Amino acid sequence: MKLVTFKNKDGAERAGWLKGDGVVDMHLISKGALPANMLQFIDHHEQYFAIIKEQGLEDIESTYSLDAIKLLAPLPNPRSFRDYVSFEQHLQNAAARFGHSIAKEWYEMPIFYFTNHQAIYGPEEEIARPSKETKLDYELEMACIIGKKGKNIKAEEAEDYIFGYTVFNDWTARSIQGVEMKVHLGPAKGKDFANAIGPCIVTRDEMNQYLQDNGRFNVRMIAKINGQVICEGNFNTIHYTFGQMIERASENGVTLYPGDILGSGTVGWGSLIETGGEAHRFLERGDVVEFEIEGIGVLRNYVV
Amino acid sequence: MKLVTFKNKDGAERAGWLKGDGVVDMHLISKGALPANMLQFIDHHEQYFAIIKEQGLEDIESTYSLDAIKLLAPLPNPRSFRDYVSFEQHLQNAAARFGHSIAKEWYEMPIFYFTNHQAIYGPEEEIARPSKETKLDYELEMACIIGKKGKNIKAEEAEDYIFGYTVFNDWTARSIQGVEMKVHLGPAKGKDFANAIGPCIVTRDEMNQYLQDNGRFNVRMIAKINGQVICEGNFNTIHYTFGQMIERASENGVTLYPGDILGSGTVGWGSLIETGGEAHRFLERGDVVEFEIEGIGVLRNYVV
Repeated sequence: MKLVTFKNKDGAERAGWLKGDGVVDMHLISKGALPANMLQFIDHHEQYFAIIKEQGLEDIESTYSLDAIKLLAPLPNPRSFRDYVSFEQHLQNAAARFGHSIAKEWYEMPIFYFTNHQAIYGPEEEIARPSKETKLDYELEMACIIGKKGKNIKAEEAEDYIFGYTVFNDWTARSIQGVEMKVHLGPAKGKDFANAIGPCIVTRDEMNQYLQDNGRFNVRMIAKINGQVICEGNFNTIHYTFGQMIERASENGVTLYPGDILGSGTVGWGSLIETGGEAHRFLERGDVVEFEIEGIGVLRNYVV
Repeated sequence: MKLVTFKNKDGAERAGWLKGDGVVDMHLISKGALPANMLQFIDHHEQYFAIIKEQGLEDIESTYSLDAIKLLAPLPNPRSFRDYVSFEQHLQNAAARFGHSIAKEWYEMPIFYFTNHQAIYGPEEEIARPSKETKLDYELEMACIIGKKGKNIKAEEAEDYIFGYTVFNDWTARSIQGVEMKVHLGPAKGKDFANAIGPCIVTRDEMNQYLQDNGRFNVRMIAKINGQVICEGNFNTIHYTFGQMIERASENGVTLYPGDILGSGTVGWGSLIETGGEAHRFLERGDVVEFEIEGIGVLRNYVV
């Protein structure tokens, strides 16, 4: 299933799923048996998926056509947001840009930082370039949404803790980031102004059709600016699996909760800093940024 | 007022304030007009403080003696947690330890990172040393709790957005931190396992009695291990005010919410890494760590 959060014509926020050219309002069609918001659905998803199955709700036709509603971030209020750097090519490109090499420690464990889970943007939303920022950039990532509370989770058992996946644009202010990180903390202000996710959350079972034998999804990841393809990668080039990232996050008795998000890190060539300005200048007002991940969909945002 | 969250003898979590040798249960004594949890109190604190004043509730005697209840973290569920490095002496000590100097960028703006707001511990709680960690450390900080939603807040107007203050122990696994930060992100795993706050939240108006002309609190900050004083500092040595930190956090349209926490950074000599092992070894099982900030109280935790 492709789960979504949307605003209906009355302006009310609802949860549901994509069906053909429309969306199903899960609260409405279940006569209140299913919730009106995604976080509640994720919190008790086993129970809710059972209701959907029992009542055959997956076969019901759409409640609204897509042009009658507005898609929002599929999970507008994640409980937390960790972002990893799990693609070797991205790190190689970034390291080369700054004239150093990848730290050997990167090969020893998945590395992450906490980012701003309270600055969530959805599909079709405008992203404001921070004032004075001259190097506004994007980062093309896949995000994994946690479905079950747990700690000290091993990579081999991590699948049980995954709810689903979405497209993630880790909007980045490179000038701000470059200055603040001289103090060897963060990033914080370079990344705190916008985390865009969407257009939907693809459930774990549906996404697993793309799984390769090595535990990585074989799905294309494409970044476009104003319709021009800038990056074309594949998720299967990732070094660490989400299972390994979940193991790392939950180590030392750290509890993960339903609605926590883990970003994969940027796919190789999935940011403008990697292309050294050859493929494209940094982002400017009016630019349309589209991220597509095969099997999930297109996340489109506008720079203002 | 010194606001607290506690578990009553029935095991229910309640909010209230310290009164003499006891606590007042705000929900109980107000016959439900005041909430049972701190986050709800903070969200609507202007309305609730008005009720307290109108009904003269501040003069009511304590509901329970302190030994009949268990104090919890005063805000067990902050919405987010930023931690700054705002004391120059701490940074000087840490830099000297690693043989470099303070980055000039630190003098240009307050620097922070996001830490784990879902790993909150309270007074008297046990802190588990991460397995294999040989350099378990603490960091003595003051934390500021946001009371009002806002963005692009200027330092001069930031006072309005502050709810109160508490003692903060930023528990740190130095070995883990040292390895992960070689990749130039974070810290994350070095700091994600325990953020201890307490014993109470001192309201802004009460704390302001300690304000100096330069906008910094003149309050002693003391760290003890097993009763032995290891660090004795003063908050007035801080370089950036909480007002400046709020301005930085909310820049570029980033929204702060009631219940967000900002850590001050470690006071000079307020971590064991600064003393170079001369004043004290790193922490071991059985150690009792007490942090005291004048005007707030003592936050005591046990290493297990």
